[in-house]
Amino acid sequence: MTVNANLCALHGSYLFSETAARVAAFSQENPGKTLLRLGIGDVTLPVADAVVRALCAAAEEMGRPDGVHGYAPTAGYPFAIEAVRNGYYAPMGVDVAAEDIFISDGAKPDTAGAQELLSPGAVVAVCDPVYPVYADSNAMAGRRVVYLPCRAKDGFAPPLPRERVDAVYLCSPNNPTGMALSRDALAAWVDYARREDVLLLFDAAYSAYVAARDTPRSLFQIPGAQEVGVEFGSLSKSAGFTGLRCGWTVVPSANRWGLRRLWARRMATKTNGVAYPVQRAAEAALSPEGLAQSQQSVRYYQENARLLGEALRRSGYVVFGGADAPYLWVRCPEGLDGWGWFDRLLRQAQIVCTPGEGFGRCGAGYVRFCAFGRRDEIREAAERLGMNA
Amino acid sequence: MTVNANLCALHGSYLFSETAARVAAFSQENPGKTLLRLGIGDVTLPVADAVVRALCAAAEEMGRPDGVHGYAPTAGYPFAIEAVRNGYYAPMGVDVAAEDIFISDGAKPDTAGAQELLSPGAVVAVCDPVYPVYADSNAMAGRRVVYLPCRAKDGFAPPLPRERVDAVYLCSPNNPTGMALSRDALAAWVDYARREDVLLLFDAAYSAYVAARDTPRSLFQIPGAQEVGVEFGSLSKSAGFTGLRCGWTVVPSANRWGLRRLWARRMATKTNGVAYPVQRAAEAALSPEGLAQSQQSVRYYQENARLLGEALRRSGYVVFGGADAPYLWVRCPEGLDGWGWFDRLLRQAQIVCTPGEGFGRCGAGYVRFCAFGRRDEIREAAERLGMNA
Repeated sequence: MTVNANLCALHGSYLFSETAARVAAFSQENPGKTLLRLGIGDVTLPVADAVVRALCAAAEEMGRPDGVHGYAPTAGYPFAIEAVRNGYYAPMGVDVAAEDIFISDGAKPDTAGAQELLSPGAVVAVCDPVYPVYADSNAMAGRRVVYLPCRAKDGFAPPLPRERVDAVYLCSPNNPTGMALSRDALAAWVDYARREDVLLLFDAAYSAYVAARDTPRSLFQIPGAQEVGVEFGSLSKSAGFTGLRCGWTVVPSANRWGLRRLWARRMATKTNGVAYPVQRAAEAALSPEGLAQSQQSVRYYQENARLLGEALRRSGYVVFGGADAPYLWVRCPEGLDGWGWFDRLLRQAQIVCTPGEGFGRCGAGYVRFCAFGRRDEIREAAERLGMNA
Repeated sequence: MTVNANLCALHGSYLFSETAARVAAFSQENPGKTLLRLGIGDVTLPVADAVVRALCAAAEEMGRPDGVHGYAPTAGYPFAIEAVRNGYYAPMGVDVAAEDIFISDGAKPDTAGAQELLSPGAVVAVCDPVYPVYADSNAMAGRRVVYLPCRAKDGFAPPLPRERVDAVYLCSPNNPTGMALSRDALAAWVDYARREDVLLLFDAAYSAYVAARDTPRSLFQIPGAQEVGVEFGSLSKSAGFTGLRCGWTVVPSANRWGLRRLWARRMATKTNGVAYPVQRAAEAALSPEGLAQSQQSVRYYQENARLLGEALRRSGYVVFGGADAPYLWVRCPEGLDGWGWFDRLLRQAQIVCTPGEGFGRCGAGYVRFCAFGRRDEIREAAERLGMNA
């Protein structure tokens, strides 16, 4: 039996498994100490009442003889697809056809699976620093991954690739840097992709955090993007669905390589759709009532990011992100790299962050703080960061 | 951009998309006619009360500030893992370690993803006829697929491969033939795998339907299987979870190629676990109360299979399966192939089945009937089959 050597060759553990292991070791050695978790980007506020009611109603329905729901349509129930069209895209003025929307159990599985559209020999480009899933899922399949160095001097916007690539992963607002691409920057990417025949894989999981009026929330706000772009959406960070698992992928019929049919074939072969109660929950989250409730949570996290950024800047740190994203990307104190500052913050301040090195070579010398904590924890973290520079 | 030619080369549509399209076309032309759906293997009875209560309780918990559940552990919550150990494996006398169990959103995504453990150049063997997912997921990745011809004279048990392969997919009780492998047959497979260094990928999704006392429900009932086997389990057919999506994969620590660590790495990279309410529902389904409730449903479907098989045999058909599985595998009337009988049954009797050709070359001349219908539909189908031979 010959094992997948590309999978074996991946570094030992997924980034967040590694930070979790270090945190667990610290907690075991220091059982009395309370940790302030600003590491993994997980929500802390409950889901909206509308979501709870929808989950329960769907569950009760499934328990009645006349309410049985078996396999969902592979691309999702029409009610969930319409909710994405009307509750997500319509308010930003983007018209997406129902047949181009595929409901999934989250943006992570879909961004990880998107590489299956590409030939085994295709070359993909990712930002550096990068959300590890894009790079690892391609490395597992044996593809060459080109890194686009994102620098502080450019506000961590990625440069166009210098060499021929088949596809580029973009994430805006960005994980981990917290910076969003401007309309001009995104238009330049679409222009490049159309000219050079390159697929754009656009992760919009943090779109709800865009505050700047002219910053796009969807790739499809750029004319021509439907021809070369695929977009991943998620309710995880906008509606607190990290523990419910629902997102979507848009593969436009106008895609120049005919990827819509291939994505449908891939989904039909590899998944059996998303749980009916979860799709009902998604519908509720994207209803006017659900949106109003979850936007309160988004504003709460945005305020967290503001408080944390303010405290860090006041203490003299160089801070990126936070304005259009729930992440702050902060330069380490002189003489420390990301893992070094991670360890020091853990030991001295019991603050958990994520070391920039975990996101790639150009992440070195930075850490990511996430603003999904409870307000009291954020205030406490801001205070401790001031004392533990 | 170079598209995955292996994905493009797959036949146009997934089998069940194709049958669904033909059924939809018929319904559109014949709006008055009621169909008896014995095609796709989807349940028709509601989920157990215990499951409904668990879903609602978890949903309400997630709506409270002190009940927030974000990202689940990648391998599943310990309570769900323990439920699989104690509610599923313990009753059959199989001891599986908690760390070897990975909760997932179903056996289909996991059987489709298992090929990622293999080298791109690995050769896999599947039964013919076969559940299309095993073959298609490997074909999409460009692997060579060897078909093991399963013949009526052998009770549709697959022969050992004649050539060198890296992995073999087995499904018992089998989809589509409805036949289960005996203890001796399975022991011969384990012996072969250990001797020839071959991975066995064992799909146990229909294990709840095994009626014969000595027929194994788990590969791990065979000594030595932990060294060479991976097993996929599902609540879809045992507890009516087709619309809730929960299953598991067991990759034993004793695996000789160290696949447990690789599976964990793959899961951490490509998924964010299963919805918390769904894992609570799985726990409830595997509790004594849940098991008692869902075993009633299993018995109901078993009785359906018995009624259908009896009627078919009485009408002179050659029938396989049905005794240890919810599927009947029936030889077509003289002069008709599977698609031909499918079309005739649809037109003349408004019965939907699945043509054997859709499961592979050796499926030619057979159709699959599934016994998941409502009792009145099954009785009606049995009657019509008698009249429409």
